[in-house]
Amino acid sequence: MSKITIRELAKSLNLSIASVSKALKDSHEISAATKKKVVDMAHQLNYIPNPYASSLRKKKSKTIGVILPEVADNFFSLVINGIQSVAELKGYHLLIYLSHDKFLNEKTIVEDCSSGRVDGVLISISGETNTPTHIQPLLDENIPIVFFDREYEGFDTATVLTNDYECGYLSAKHLLNKGVERPVFLSVYGAIAMCKKREDGFLACLHDVGIVASRWYKPVINCNGNAVEVNKTIIKLLKGKHAPDGVVASVERLAIQVYLASQELQISIPAQLKVIAFSTLETAPILNPSLTTICQPAFDMGKTAAELLFKRIEKNTLRFKPERIILPSVLMERDSTRNP
Amino acid sequence: MSKITIRELAKSLNLSIASVSKALKDSHEISAATKKKVVDMAHQLNYIPNPYASSLRKKKSKTIGVILPEVADNFFSLVINGIQSVAELKGYHLLIYLSHDKFLNEKTIVEDCSSGRVDGVLISISGETNTPTHIQPLLDENIPIVFFDREYEGFDTATVLTNDYECGYLSAKHLLNKGVERPVFLSVYGAIAMCKKREDGFLACLHDVGIVASRWYKPVINCNGNAVEVNKTIIKLLKGKHAPDGVVASVERLAIQVYLASQELQISIPAQLKVIAFSTLETAPILNPSLTTICQPAFDMGKTAAELLFKRIEKNTLRFKPERIILPSVLMERDSTRNP
Repeated sequence: MSKITIRELAKSLNLSIASVSKALKDSHEISAATKKKVVDMAHQLNYIPNPYASSLRKKKSKTIGVILPEVADNFFSLVINGIQSVAELKGYHLLIYLSHDKFLNEKTIVEDCSSGRVDGVLISISGETNTPTHIQPLLDENIPIVFFDREYEGFDTATVLTNDYECGYLSAKHLLNKGVERPVFLSVYGAIAMCKKREDGFLACLHDVGIVASRWYKPVINCNGNAVEVNKTIIKLLKGKHAPDGVVASVERLAIQVYLASQELQISIPAQLKVIAFSTLETAPILNPSLTTICQPAFDMGKTAAELLFKRIEKNTLRFKPERIILPSVLMERDSTRNP
Repeated sequence: MSKITIRELAKSLNLSIASVSKALKDSHEISAATKKKVVDMAHQLNYIPNPYASSLRKKKSKTIGVILPEVADNFFSLVINGIQSVAELKGYHLLIYLSHDKFLNEKTIVEDCSSGRVDGVLISISGETNTPTHIQPLLDENIPIVFFDREYEGFDTATVLTNDYECGYLSAKHLLNKGVERPVFLSVYGAIAMCKKREDGFLACLHDVGIVASRWYKPVINCNGNAVEVNKTIIKLLKGKHAPDGVVASVERLAIQVYLASQELQISIPAQLKVIAFSTLETAPILNPSLTTICQPAFDMGKTAAELLFKRIEKNTLRFKPERIILPSVLMERDSTRNP
């Protein structure tokens, strides 16, 4: 018996190929009734997806797209190296796209990825992204996607994250254990799930020990904007009458800004100000003073995300179970939070 | 009078379209006699290159390729930001390719760029590259190329560099002025023009003041290999009986390795060892001790290279004069070379 194609299957159902393809992939765009009709007819006609043809079509670009907010952060450099370590073995190239943390850039980039240019996409979403509608078309085209570090929550695909909430909690706990009384969390782009979780964890710890916000004490300070704007925000905070005696830098570059501002204002770290940062900075141990970090497993996150993506690119099944892998971060205590 | 096409021109000359195109672009692959024949016939038949069609064809990808050795170095992150600042205004995307300093990777990447995927290429060549033959096909396809930071010397196109030779000289001079007697230049990938120039400048200064190599003093140490191998090389150097009292780190990551090794070996910087580095490290002022740097104008180099590339992408002429732009680096003296 000769195999029928998806085209023939669609024709017999009087549906478009796209609709049939979506129905077989259990897309939310297709009604339950239609899905049942499609699956029944597929069984009846003995429709078997042609894995070889599909794989040939899908793999022709030998390229995967990596969509990042930026590369200035050491974290993403390490992630790229992790991804590359897998891609190289598979004979794949990376195309690295930068969204510069803007939703509109990300949207155009995703469109670019959907033209057959890449066989799969690894994405860490921009700080402005609050909808997944621009990403759905990739899945509809059979281009697998894996999120890393910054996900769009509730989108059914594979995701590689670190334990941001727990580490946010830990960062506050660490400062309090060192005698800090007014810890402040320096936040960026509140909308990003990753950053929000760190912040939520931080606030949960404050709540547990009964520290409450007041007119004179705001536990979270937003540090959005370019380097000059962030510098102003931090200088204002550290010069204020109710300046904090400990800060958590939610991303690496804020820690650098805190050090530079402290140097300028002659604030002594850790005597007057304790600093802990979410960071993979290679220079953390040789800073003055050495910086206490919560170090994300950046290389491993990239490697794991790439492995999940290739599993999807290479396997010829129409459905994937959503996967969620959490790689824990590690607190490295150094001089910036030590008591003299 | 209707305009003739390049196809008709080629036919009337009994040559291939490619040869005619090359002849009109003054390619070195075409003999002077053939070039004259082509140009004469082009005049005779009133052949006018169709700039609009050519520009339409060339611009359709709205993407430029950026080929880098790595992104772990802060220098390249800043370069990317400089390129992006121009590309964004032009409505272009960047595709960032990483050669990981390997010639074979670079070769495949360049091939990938020649398929109409990009409208132009910015490239900083890999440490292994010692031939331009893989790059020539891009020019033959009318895809403009601009080199930045690491060029292939003698290749006729635009190039944006910094004054590496002068800065190499300056780095040695600076250490000698601070009383260093056995300065050592930490080199990577001797084949790269940029690095070789820094090294040549360094050695020229030593020559000028009469410092000569001996069995116990090698002024240049190669630090190739991965982080573990480089660490071993540096530890061995600093522990040696004839250890240097001053080093020049030819790239940023070597400076970090010198700091980490000194910390491990309890060698005091600057008292026992003075350190100067070619670096754009944002953390240079907050290292322990703060690091004296020769700081390349990375952002401006990216911006300038992108501007030159867009001039080539947008203009519809068949020939470009080779351009060579040198943006000077700046020495920033800090504590790592200061006498107590």
